[in-house]
Amino acid sequence: MKVTGIIAEYNPFHNGHEYQMKTVRQALNPDFLIVVLSGDHVQRGTPALLDKFSRTQMALCCGADLVLELPVSYSCSSAEYFAEGAVSLLHGLGVVTHLCFGCETPRQELFIKTASLLNQEPPSYRQALKASLKKGLPYPAARAGALTACLHPNQADSEEAALLRSPNNLLGVEYCRVLDKLHSPIKPWPILRVGSGYHEQSFSDPDSYPSASAIRSYLSAHSDLNGLYSQMPRTAARLLQKAVKERRNILEDDYSLLLQTQLLRESLLSLTEYLDLSEELSRRIIRNRNQFQSFSQFCRLLKTKEVTYTRIQRSLLHVLLNLKEIYPVSYARVLGFRKESAELLHRIKKEGSLPLLTKLANAREILSPSGQKLLAQDVFASNFYQAVSSQKSGLPFIHEYQKPIIIQE
Amino acid sequence: MKVTGIIAEYNPFHNGHEYQMKTVRQALNPDFLIVVLSGDHVQRGTPALLDKFSRTQMALCCGADLVLELPVSYSCSSAEYFAEGAVSLLHGLGVVTHLCFGCETPRQELFIKTASLLNQEPPSYRQALKASLKKGLPYPAARAGALTACLHPNQADSEEAALLRSPNNLLGVEYCRVLDKLHSPIKPWPILRVGSGYHEQSFSDPDSYPSASAIRSYLSAHSDLNGLYSQMPRTAARLLQKAVKERRNILEDDYSLLLQTQLLRESLLSLTEYLDLSEELSRRIIRNRNQFQSFSQFCRLLKTKEVTYTRIQRSLLHVLLNLKEIYPVSYARVLGFRKESAELLHRIKKEGSLPLLTKLANAREILSPSGQKLLAQDVFASNFYQAVSSQKSGLPFIHEYQKPIIIQE
Repeated sequence: MKVTGIIAEYNPFHNGHEYQMKTVRQALNPDFLIVVLSGDHVQRGTPALLDKFSRTQMALCCGADLVLELPVSYSCSSAEYFAEGAVSLLHGLGVVTHLCFGCETPRQELFIKTASLLNQEPPSYRQALKASLKKGLPYPAARAGALTACLHPNQADSEEAALLRSPNNLLGVEYCRVLDKLHSPIKPWPILRVGSGYHEQSFSDPDSYPSASAIRSYLSAHSDLNGLYSQMPRTAARLLQKAVKERRNILEDDYSLLLQTQLLRESLLSLTEYLDLSEELSRRIIRNRNQFQSFSQFCRLLKTKEVTYTRIQRSLLHVLLNLKEIYPVSYARVLGFRKESAELLHRIKKEGSLPLLTKLANAREILSPSGQKLLAQDVFASNFYQAVSSQKSGLPFIHEYQKPIIIQE
Repeated sequence: MKVTGIIAEYNPFHNGHEYQMKTVRQALNPDFLIVVLSGDHVQRGTPALLDKFSRTQMALCCGADLVLELPVSYSCSSAEYFAEGAVSLLHGLGVVTHLCFGCETPRQELFIKTASLLNQEPPSYRQALKASLKKGLPYPAARAGALTACLHPNQADSEEAALLRSPNNLLGVEYCRVLDKLHSPIKPWPILRVGSGYHEQSFSDPDSYPSASAIRSYLSAHSDLNGLYSQMPRTAARLLQKAVKERRNILEDDYSLLLQTQLLRESLLSLTEYLDLSEELSRRIIRNRNQFQSFSQFCRLLKTKEVTYTRIQRSLLHVLLNLKEIYPVSYARVLGFRKESAELLHRIKKEGSLPLLTKLANAREILSPSGQKLLAQDVFASNFYQAVSSQKSGLPFIHEYQKPIIIQE
């Protein structure tokens, strides 16, 4: 049985995502396609535009067979932890044969070699890295240079270094590093990214694929969705339209009041207990909290040369969601599946090392104490998202335990 | 020197309050009039309609010489604690000669006698109370009956019992009980309440005084303030108009999202740590929190025969404001004064047992550790209020420490 895994956020799902699924189907012809999806909060440190069940529905309508949730402490984390959570989840299913990801340099062997080297850190690499850092080079550049120095000492630059210099490849390298560490039988399968860059804010080329970021920009500037219909598969566009009409779409600034009052509760000491909050950043937060206007404005205010905007956004989200610890991935939570995937679920149950969680009510019996803590973080984060959504839309609050998983006919 | 104290909320200030001040001036001819004012959160367990500095300004414009803040753990508390906080504050100033309060039965000696008896609890009273409670009478009725049984054993009813049966007298009785306990030289001075009842929702009689509650109702139903100008002194109306125009007026439902997400953080155990939260009420909160729609709707949902709506509202506010302990009143915080009150401030500094706090920056030097904790509760509660107000209005957040006290020319 061939099973391909994809790690995604679908924030929201668009034509580029559909293209990726179709390409995977053509290239690998898998029996099943599993998506590991960020839950209600995504890697850039914000709430997702749409809740995870809406995004799961989009994925299932457009080609996925099974959607699993990436726990919030991994989904709102640096590339390294994001990769660790998602890949170890796929690995633990025991059935995945390929991991497909988008990149700029679709050369499998290059990814594998680079990942393995970064994991091993041979002495020549470590020495070169140390020397470059001493010279004051920033870490990414130092790392790329050290890789060349170690692999091709007589060259000025190497393909591996070039790989590391493209941000679109970096996540793929992290995925491969986790596969390497786990000695996983899963084969990495890089495919060329098409369409606009990750941060592209407009639909520049009508024949090209959009970026999720451009779609979110469009939504914040337009009251109608007409300009989006050409950018998204029909079902995804309809789901988005319904959510927007019901005012269920959430942006980081819907969290502004919550963040401001939460920060008033904190002290320098209590802030440093959250994930990713250094003492330096905590100090800046305390020093600047009287200038708070909104979530996004406050992130811009805290931004320095040393710390990325995204890192700050994630840190603040950790404060809101009370994230203080990362527990190991110890279950696979099902958000939805196609009805015809019964065999896949059956095989995972038989061959996987992680229990499949389909009903939260069973969690206590199935999960270890640390697994229960991991799940509790997700339940709180999703209830938090749901509370904001229900206050904004006026629709009833539905507790995470009451939400059925999506079963697509 | 004659100094009269008034305990008030001015939520908001209206003609009835002005009438009270004028009556006090005529009846007692005091040299100075001191108001103890609930801060940004009031006794019915809600945020005040306007922030404390706006309400201080109203009071100073309309007749007060000095306005002091009643700390939040007392202002959002039962009649008993509310009275304890406010009266011990006035007593500690060392200069107050009279305490003036509104009532239905303006007979000083009756208040003094009733209060002293409730404090002493002589055996005959205690026996009668016990017997009535055993018969299943509710506490207020049992207490009124026991008072008659103890004072006038051969009568079916007594004036003292009648006093206790009017809700408008009860707060006065509590004030007098605190004066009695403190052996305070302050003389209680009940004056007849005029105008609509406390809970009256409309301006029934054009020649009568309104209730603050009717004004709040009017504001939530009308977009213009035209109907209010006849109900409030001109300056107070102008201040209210300005606040409404700037969207700085706050209602309990402006706290809805904050309360809903805070309740998601709590457990049965953590809830019972807050002031006034019995295990029974905590259990009802946890059981019903998925039905949360808004602050007011949730209070109605939790309401039972045994627990008043106001008590529930206060309990929920305690959760939001993190109120877990009541510290003794150990300072007098100045919110504002008339410029001509210099002598009054001078005398308080000389004769009072409580330090006068005019600058928060001095708090650490002046206050005991427990006084600093009392103040920290107020600073947090006011910053919380200010955050909500600044998010609603779009005006900059101003930290409690940055706000100047009001000095009225």
